[in-house]
Amino acid sequence: MIYDITIPQFTKMLKNLDAILAKAIPYAEAKKIEVDVLLNSRLAPDQFSLLRQIQIATDTAKIGVSKLTGKDAPVHDDKETTLPQLRARIADTITFLSSVTEKDFAGAHERKITTPRWENKFLLGHEYVVQHTIPNLYFHVSVAYEILRHNGLDIGKKDYLGAMPFRT
Amino acid sequence: MIYDITIPQFTKMLKNLDAILAKAIPYAEAKKIEVDVLLNSRLAPDQFSLLRQIQIATDTAKIGVSKLTGKDAPVHDDKETTLPQLRARIADTITFLSSVTEKDFAGAHERKITTPRWENKFLLGHEYVVQHTIPNLYFHVSVAYEILRHNGLDIGKKDYLGAMPFRT
Repeated sequence: MIYDITIPQFTKMLKNLDAILAKAIPYAEAKKIEVDVLLNSRLAPDQFSLLRQIQIATDTAKIGVSKLTGKDAPVHDDKETTLPQLRARIADTITFLSSVTEKDFAGAHERKITTPRWENKFLLGHEYVVQHTIPNLYFHVSVAYEILRHNGLDIGKKDYLGAMPFRT
Repeated sequence: MIYDITIPQFTKMLKNLDAILAKAIPYAEAKKIEVDVLLNSRLAPDQFSLLRQIQIATDTAKIGVSKLTGKDAPVHDDKETTLPQLRARIADTITFLSSVTEKDFAGAHERKITTPRWENKFLLGHEYVVQHTIPNLYFHVSVAYEILRHNGLDIGKKDYLGAMPFRT
């Protein structure tokens, strides 16, 4: 069940983020600005830039899944400076997610999860995914969206949510 | 299981949102501005204001749970204009959430969910909650956070995430 609320939806959200970033390319061209201006934008002086928000969004997905399953996530050295590099990082993260199966989540619900920052304290897997990983992923995708929206990109909530699998 | 990824976490996120809004009161006083200035702020001219983001965040939680369980959600007439009114709406929504039990979600996984906007198309409950309700809730809380952050309120991601139930 943790698979169902992570892998397909994290993949979808990273694809949505990538599609939003793709829209920034013709926008920057039309405005005659460098995409870098957008990548270095932020909504508060002490906030991470769009570039860093994208890095953290991918980290949140891959590290969350790695901790829940024990599978090694791809390493990214955080040296991306261009949009194509950031989009490659997203694609790489999606490839990792697609390699993870439902069986890999066996025991994830009760697995003890920690990070160096938590100083030996831990969460159980189901607490970690619901209270930490999922809200963090949506946060960084939303902030990336907001930075671009604030800078004039013509995007709406449908770009953030992606297509719904409607039935008739 | 849908209970576990909705009721406790939606309640937590609405409490986090309320605590962030509470921080806006002394901030506005110190800045000698009306809180209304913040409530009417937005990050793009065609975006909903902070006030509306708060209304939609509560709607997302209460309507989502109502559709999944069949339990009537409280009606709010969207006439709030002040911060105390908005905080009362949040409290009212939390009260509704606390009235919903695990048993109320029986059958929610396969329940057909629709809205007038979807023109007779529908989602199954598990699709609706994972792909629509949860991302929407985080979106509107994140945007509310971002509007205040952009306007100088001293908040960080911990305010958004809330406390973690750490174990030792």
